Amino acid sequence: MTGTVMQTDPATLAEGVNLLWVLVVTFLIFFMHAGFAMLEAGQVRAKNVANQLTKNMLTWSVGVTVFFLIGAGISSLAGWLTAGMSGEAPGLLATWTMGSSGLVSWLFGAVFAMTAATIVSGAVAGRARLRAYVGYTILLAAVIYPVVAGLVWGGGLLAGSGPLGNLLGVGFHDFAGGMIVHGMGGLAGLTAAAVIGARLGRFEKGSVNVIPGHSITFAVLGTLILAFGWYGFNVGTAATVFAPGSDTLALGAFANVGAVALATTLGMAAGAMGAGAAAWYKTGKVDTLYVANGMLAGLVGVTAIADAIVWPGALLVGFLAGVQLPIVFGFVEKRLHIDDVCAVFPVHGSAGILGALAFPFVATEFWSGASGVAWLASQFAAQVIGVGVIAAWTVGATAAVFYTFKLAGQARVTPEHEREGLDSSEHGVETYPEFGVGDEAPIMADGGMVASERSRTADDSVVEHGGDHE
Amino acid sequence: MTGTVMQTDPATLAEGVNLLWVLVVTFLIFFMHAGFAMLEAGQVRAKNVANQLTKNMLTWSVGVTVFFLIGAGISSLAGWLTAGMSGEAPGLLATWTMGSSGLVSWLFGAVFAMTAATIVSGAVAGRARLRAYVGYTILLAAVIYPVVAGLVWGGGLLAGSGPLGNLLGVGFHDFAGGMIVHGMGGLAGLTAAAVIGARLGRFEKGSVNVIPGHSITFAVLGTLILAFGWYGFNVGTAATVFAPGSDTLALGAFANVGAVALATTLGMAAGAMGAGAAAWYKTGKVDTLYVANGMLAGLVGVTAIADAIVWPGALLVGFLAGVQLPIVFGFVEKRLHIDDVCAVFPVHGSAGILGALAFPFVATEFWSGASGVAWLASQFAAQVIGVGVIAAWTVGATAAVFYTFKLAGQARVTPEHEREGLDSSEHGVETYPEFGVGDEAPIMADGGMVASERSRTADDSVVEHGGDHE
Amino acid sequence: MTGTVMQTDPATLAEGVNLLWVLVVTFLIFFMHAGFAMLEAGQVRAKNVANQLTKNMLTWSVGVTVFFLIGAGISSLAGWLTAGMSGEAPGLLATWTMGSSGLVSWLFGAVFAMTAATIVSGAVAGRARLRAYVGYTILLAAVIYPVVAGLVWGGGLLAGSGPLGNLLGVGFHDFAGGMIVHGMGGLAGLTAAAVIGARLGRFEKGSVNVIPGHSITFAVLGTLILAFGWYGFNVGTAATVFAPGSDTLALGAFANVGAVALATTLGMAAGAMGAGAAAWYKTGKVDTLYVANGMLAGLVGVTAIADAIVWPGALLVGFLAGVQLPIVFGFVEKRLHIDDVCAVFPVHGSAGILGALAFPFVATEFWSGASGVAWLASQFAAQVIGVGVIAAWTVGATAAVFYTFKLAGQARVTPEHEREGLDSSEHGVETYPEFGVGDEAPIMADGGMVASERSRTADDSVVEHGGDHE
Repeated sequence: MTGTVMQTDPATLAEGVNLLWVLVVTFLIFFMHAGFAMLEAGQVRAKNVANQLTKNMLTWSVGVTVFFLIGAGISSLAGWLTAGMSGEAPGLLATWTMGSSGLVSWLFGAVFAMTAATIVSGAVAGRARLRAYVGYTILLAAVIYPVVAGLVWGGGLLAGSGPLGNLLGVGFHDFAGGMIVHGMGGLAGLTAAAVIGARLGRFEKGSVNVIPGHSITFAVLGTLILAFGWYGFNVGTAATVFAPGSDTLALGAFANVGAVALATTLGMAAGAMGAGAAAWYKTGKVDTLYVANGMLAGLVGVTAIADAIVWPGALLVGFLAGVQLPIVFGFVEKRLHIDDVCAVFPVHGSAGILGALAFPFVATEFWSGASGVAWLASQFAAQVIGVGVIAAWTVGATAAVFYTFKLAGQARVTPEHEREGLDSSEHGVETYPEFGVGDEAPIMADGGMVASERSRTADDSVVEHGGDHE
Repeated sequence: MTGTVMQTDPATLAEGVNLLWVLVVTFLIFFMHAGFAMLEAGQVRAKNVANQLTKNMLTWSVGVTVFFLIGAGISSLAGWLTAGMSGEAPGLLATWTMGSSGLVSWLFGAVFAMTAATIVSGAVAGRARLRAYVGYTILLAAVIYPVVAGLVWGGGLLAGSGPLGNLLGVGFHDFAGGMIVHGMGGLAGLTAAAVIGARLGRFEKGSVNVIPGHSITFAVLGTLILAFGWYGFNVGTAATVFAPGSDTLALGAFANVGAVALATTLGMAAGAMGAGAAAWYKTGKVDTLYVANGMLAGLVGVTAIADAIVWPGALLVGFLAGVQLPIVFGFVEKRLHIDDVCAVFPVHGSAGILGALAFPFVATEFWSGASGVAWLASQFAAQVIGVGVIAAWTVGATAAVFYTFKLAGQARVTPEHEREGLDSSEHGVETYPEFGVGDEAPIMADGGMVASERSRTADDSVVEHGGDHE
Repeated sequence: MTGTVMQTDPATLAEGVNLLWVLVVTFLIFFMHAGFAMLEAGQVRAKNVANQLTKNMLTWSVGVTVFFLIGAGISSLAGWLTAGMSGEAPGLLATWTMGSSGLVSWLFGAVFAMTAATIVSGAVAGRARLRAYVGYTILLAAVIYPVVAGLVWGGGLLAGSGPLGNLLGVGFHDFAGGMIVHGMGGLAGLTAAAVIGARLGRFEKGSVNVIPGHSITFAVLGTLILAFGWYGFNVGTAATVFAPGSDTLALGAFANVGAVALATTLGMAAGAMGAGAAAWYKTGKVDTLYVANGMLAGLVGVTAIADAIVWPGALLVGFLAGVQLPIVFGFVEKRLHIDDVCAVFPVHGSAGILGALAFPFVATEFWSGASGVAWLASQFAAQVIGVGVIAAWTVGATAAVFYTFKLAGQARVTPEHEREGLDSSEHGVETYPEFGVGDEAPIMADGGMVASERSRTADDSVVEHGGDHE
């Protein structure tokens, strides 16, 4: 094919291909809702499964609508406000009149926002009232998450181009939302779980009772769907295939896409190995849910940094994210006595924080010799400040909302409804009407994450008991 | 990169990128079969799950083969015949000798055809004989669906370029198959369910009995897989990334892709909210299956029109598609006494019709001021005629086929086999051999969709009873 | 848009679009792990589900790490060594310092490698010790699979450019891994299952006992996920969208992509129909798991050849791959007395071999008249030699590894642990703690694939019995 000389501007070519890529990865990230739904459903009691599934669907449906109507505008505004209000204020309702390309970018942002939102439901499973949860989701989609995103990606307080960048020379580095999305979601979940209190029977008479989930199969299915979608999440954030000049065309962020894909892959793999190894070291057995959640923790660990680290760093951070999972889960449970049902804090929160803080130590910038210890110190400071600011805002806002619900007596269902199960009381359904669910309810109680944790009784001298909370 | 001047024609560039996009979305739409399989499996009794799954796999396998061998050719022929037979007749077996690009287009068409086909199985679950169902699928893939597609997309009777367009100045508008695929499938399902009759025990001694499905978890998983694939279905129908000129390149349908993605997203979200709100209004509880099926009804609602409406219209149509779900489901069940097991008529049929008819009232063409009330009237007439013609053909052809099977005594299994379950009688398998299925069979009977509907007894003074039909 | 003359080299344009495509299909192929996980989980007893899921996750996690660190290098080396060591030896650790594009290619290769690895776990389900399985996976990812891939795709012994090509004028044709990935995995699984022996109670006192899996729903879900991913596997192997010249651009392998997509579709469809028909012929019923595994066998059948066959050939090979499934499964079980739990040999092994050997007889090269019987004879010889060499290496290496484990007493769990279930003994978890699993354990025994095979008792005069092996 000899062809004619192509008379088009590179911008058109780049726009078409970039749109195609962004749409594909957006669909993958949307599919993570199916992953969260299955992961969480598998980790709750059979009597609360439909509740968890409904929350998942409503998180998306209500949340994405709110994020379109107002959330995205709030995010831009938060960036503008905290960066010194230079230039014209962004339009609060800009999404309402956006053109096609802008809407694709909005949707790409929306699937990240909804990921943060849906994480929370796993922490408060089995007792949060539906209206409280949906109410919080509206606020998260409208304000709480948009502010976090605006502070960094919206060019605000923590951005390299914002006050933090002016102060330190570098901004908070969060490539694909390891802290902004996952860390934020994990912290919000932990806070919400702390405020509304544990499920009945979870902590009783000094003992820590395990309430195993109803299906490891669904939980692992959810894990693998999430891992699939995560390739969209991380690799997709290398969102510009082509970067057009006025009359030239070059690869955009795609020039580095292989390194992002590798870091994502190795982080995931090392997370599974780290959590599996930790479980094996502790109990002599390779707990399936630890391996699954370890894959996810490893992914979370590298999400903030997958674009800019050396590959041994991806292995290291992923492995540590996996290893910390059982440790942090145990700490939350036994020392803080917080009932984080689906372990969202160790998986999303502490793993996200770990990755963000580890960044300078595994950065290509450092190991390639491009920058030295001074850069490392500045970048580490930026990471600490970024994590601190995001954590403070998230915990504060989430606690305020749930305390308000609590004071109004709307935060959780009645003890009767909790015992009966939320499927019946909130949704009027029975998830498995033909299976003899409940007859075989394990003696240890009502809800839960890690079945094998039962073996911990012997290790930790914690008395497990059946109780009368069924 | 300075590079050399590229000596290629824009057509090559556009062909490669367009093929890539069409293939990706085709794969996503194919994956909707997994969604339908899970959605339907979750909504039937445990003793009929394998039957539902087998039908799903055979629908694809038999149907796509038939659609390759003859169906696509029939579709072209139907378009040509009903548009006045101008020009040469299309080759009936054109697919047999197609080149690469043509085959990709064929496969893109095939996944839409198979979506229509698979919808029917959800309506006739639990009693249709496998050979009757497969026989109908062959006819649907060979003739019934191809005629519908040919009438509109094949440039036939209802197309803007065909007789309807000549008459009214506008053709029937159906962007991605809201009526052609979903409306058609929903109507076919309703017709088939009416002809073969209800499951044993569904309507008995004047009462309407609910037969809840065996797993809400699988049903919601299927819903979320379908929503994922739907992005391919709708957004993918903006199938031309680039539209090449002789020596220029511009965006094709992709210039509008963001609006399509937004309408799809808001329609889905509003559908879930609408159905959830309707269920809540009616029973005080947010039925999980209504929320799930509402997401799908919202998606169906905007499928015909997502390319050409203002975004508040997407919210409105999606919301109405959700709200009508419980109302139409109740009407079909209680007034028509038709046993549409998986609610395929309210989800695909009436929601598809609603969206098609609503088009002019929410069209960008109208709200932008580009056209006025005269256009609205013409377009509405075109929509009414299009819906009417497609409905008449679909209902007539489907009824003819199933009445023939019925007269031959082949339409449904024997009462003994129905009580025993189709898994055993038709497939020789037991889906869950290790679970004590059946011991806990709800007292209300044998199959079904919406568990919480049980609460309807009190509302509607319908006596529910256990009966002896187990 | 008139635009300016684009000043970029076609290589940049091609690189960006090709990378995009390869990444998308790589993600799809990765998602096949979710498919394998569900397919295998559904086909094992409830007490061994978590074990199967854990193996799946560890196969990916451990395997992909090993394949990065050393496996890919071994593959290149194997190609170089067996092709006569011309030119410089490839770097064993080349992946460690690869650039972005190279890493994307590596990941694309890695998802194929991990597919081969994960197949094995389905054959040894229910009794292989976790450490033995993981140990084998490490060797498979480091050496066993890389050698196979290197012999063909790495330009080694069996390649058209290697010794076999020099000898016969044509090399071993395996487009997307029908033999290299699936045949290899199926043979490895069969070998491993033979060496470690059958599950307790599977073959007892002269009878062949069936041990049905715990959930056909999960098995079919896995099947459909695999079929979705397979479009990436096969169509994605047409990996070059554009082939750039120095100043021109043309379609690369994409020029043929429609034919690949068609062959994949028809092979899958015909496989389901073939296996369904065979089951129907044999028992009068359409066994759901045969239809599902038939879809996969049909896909395997065309995987090696989908790029270069006429479409009736795809139908034929797919159909035969489906028909052979029950026959080969019965032969393995009843004559060889090998307990291939998830039927991985008939699905991946014999179907892969069948497709590879059938190639010349359905090749476009032959039917288009481009080449005659001499070519057919040479190509058939190449296929026979290729299959033979790969089979010999795979069986030999796998047997050596598992015999070593067996001698060391590490190959399988203790009989007590096997009876108790591997979930408890290896992982310390219970997959379904709330369902009364086991109470309803079918009388026939402990594990298994095809529930309807129970009907075979009458056909084959094999006495089935409950035994005391529970």
